[in-house]
Amino acid sequence: MSFERIAIIGLGLLGGSIGLALKEHLPGSVTTGYDADPAARTRAAERGLVGTVCDSPGDAVRDADLVILCVPVGTMEAAAQAIAPHLKPSALVSDVGSSKQSVANALVAALPGIAVIPAHPVAGTERSGPDAGFSSLFQNRWCIITPPADADPVLVKALADLWQALGAKIEVMDARHHDMVLAVTSHLPHLIAYTIVGTASDLEEVTEGEVIKYSAGGFRDFTRIAASDPTMWRDVFLSNKDAVLEMLQRFTEDLTALQRAIRVGDGDQLFDHFTRTRAIRRSIIELGQDDARPDFGRSDHGG
Amino acid sequence: MSFERIAIIGLGLLGGSIGLALKEHLPGSVTTGYDADPAARTRAAERGLVGTVCDSPGDAVRDADLVILCVPVGTMEAAAQAIAPHLKPSALVSDVGSSKQSVANALVAALPGIAVIPAHPVAGTERSGPDAGFSSLFQNRWCIITPPADADPVLVKALADLWQALGAKIEVMDARHHDMVLAVTSHLPHLIAYTIVGTASDLEEVTEGEVIKYSAGGFRDFTRIAASDPTMWRDVFLSNKDAVLEMLQRFTEDLTALQRAIRVGDGDQLFDHFTRTRAIRRSIIELGQDDARPDFGRSDHGG
Repeated sequence: MSFERIAIIGLGLLGGSIGLALKEHLPGSVTTGYDADPAARTRAAERGLVGTVCDSPGDAVRDADLVILCVPVGTMEAAAQAIAPHLKPSALVSDVGSSKQSVANALVAALPGIAVIPAHPVAGTERSGPDAGFSSLFQNRWCIITPPADADPVLVKALADLWQALGAKIEVMDARHHDMVLAVTSHLPHLIAYTIVGTASDLEEVTEGEVIKYSAGGFRDFTRIAASDPTMWRDVFLSNKDAVLEMLQRFTEDLTALQRAIRVGDGDQLFDHFTRTRAIRRSIIELGQDDARPDFGRSDHGG
Repeated sequence: MSFERIAIIGLGLLGGSIGLALKEHLPGSVTTGYDADPAARTRAAERGLVGTVCDSPGDAVRDADLVILCVPVGTMEAAAQAIAPHLKPSALVSDVGSSKQSVANALVAALPGIAVIPAHPVAGTERSGPDAGFSSLFQNRWCIITPPADADPVLVKALADLWQALGAKIEVMDARHHDMVLAVTSHLPHLIAYTIVGTASDLEEVTEGEVIKYSAGGFRDFTRIAASDPTMWRDVFLSNKDAVLEMLQRFTEDLTALQRAIRVGDGDQLFDHFTRTRAIRRSIIELGQDDARPDFGRSDHGG
């Protein structure tokens, strides 16, 4: 089976990219969309992110075989409640949220009798809003599907096929493990980046102008992800609280150990640690999960 | 005045890039070089990083008007001692070290009677060694010069002119302030990146394979700078200990505040913080200190 009519609720970076990728890779599908922000709806229609931009979530989902919720995770429950009375009984509801246990619970509670299979495409940029999406966002990226224990395997496969058609590679895991994996690969990095950018801008001895001026020394790498959507990330941290706090605790212990090594002048410990971390980047590049060009290829562009 | 004969001690990323940039922008200059690693000397000669690769530091500096030490900051004093007996009395000695107070002290102690003007080009990539350098490394980057109080202004200007010829923009500040600025813009980011990459690879619940696989969620941005040269960075942290520990203390306080906001569910505090940090990236891009393309332009390359 496959989905003919697909509704996208939330037309930002993710929702917009899904719409554009569907148009490119599955041109036979009929797409509708809705965004709570009227200006985003207008812009989504101008860019043709979906076939029809609707003025209510009910209109968008009425005939849909598949609904993909692309709203911040803190808004998932409200979005699900808004569409619930308008869904076909056979419709599948999925999402793209960055945390999965709390979203799964919210969707199941809001959509009694409706099939729910959460998913998370591990892809994005620091941009947000209806102008941010592009059709190749999911190419060579992983989409993690976290089916509930009682999910219909036919629907799981259909959802996986759809994401593969959009360019993604599929992994299936349980929601709890997903939340732990993403806490370390995505949520903790964002929290750290947000923190250090804040620290740097609050100093008295060093001006913000100086921080910006000399950011090529390393700082600018952190500013990219610290420019991500504040609403989305507030919700991620609150909805994946336990795993984030657990990872943060480990990070703090490790940082304290390196801090002590600096304080007591233990060069060997620092050297050993810094040697170990080098290998990870090599693996990431070998597996095609990052660009191998030095300095993210910035110097290719005179930057 | 300008420097006709320039010796480069240490032919890695920085030393090699200076040599190549001199060849391109100041083709009249006569360059010599030395590296303590015989394999690096061979490779430097093959790549033509300098006009003549010498087999001893003494030979490299004998006729030099300017010597630039491009070795890890922990090796600066030994490198200065090795060249001291061979320098012309009129030679100027400079360096490219990432910390300046300790380097300045080491150079002045090792080179009695010789003019010393430390400098730090804020430029680099995660690569190291004689294959890493390229002539455009300093284009549009800042070079911070930290002249001692008694420095000859003619020499300061000559050194600034040289860096400008290599493409850099010049800033002059005192060494103490430099060390504070770099602690926040470069040293702390590297320490944080090294820490989180270590934390991620030590988990039991999440495998290293999973960390690599899903690194596009944010983690991979940190792995770039955590792949930097371990010797160089060990030395930086030990030589700029006070400023690094000071900045680390601020960072930890800020992280603890965000951790608490997550724990108690204070969404407003998180949102306010995340909104504030967005603006900094905008400024960095406006000032030409980073690439504006989303996701560091990775998606342009199908990455």
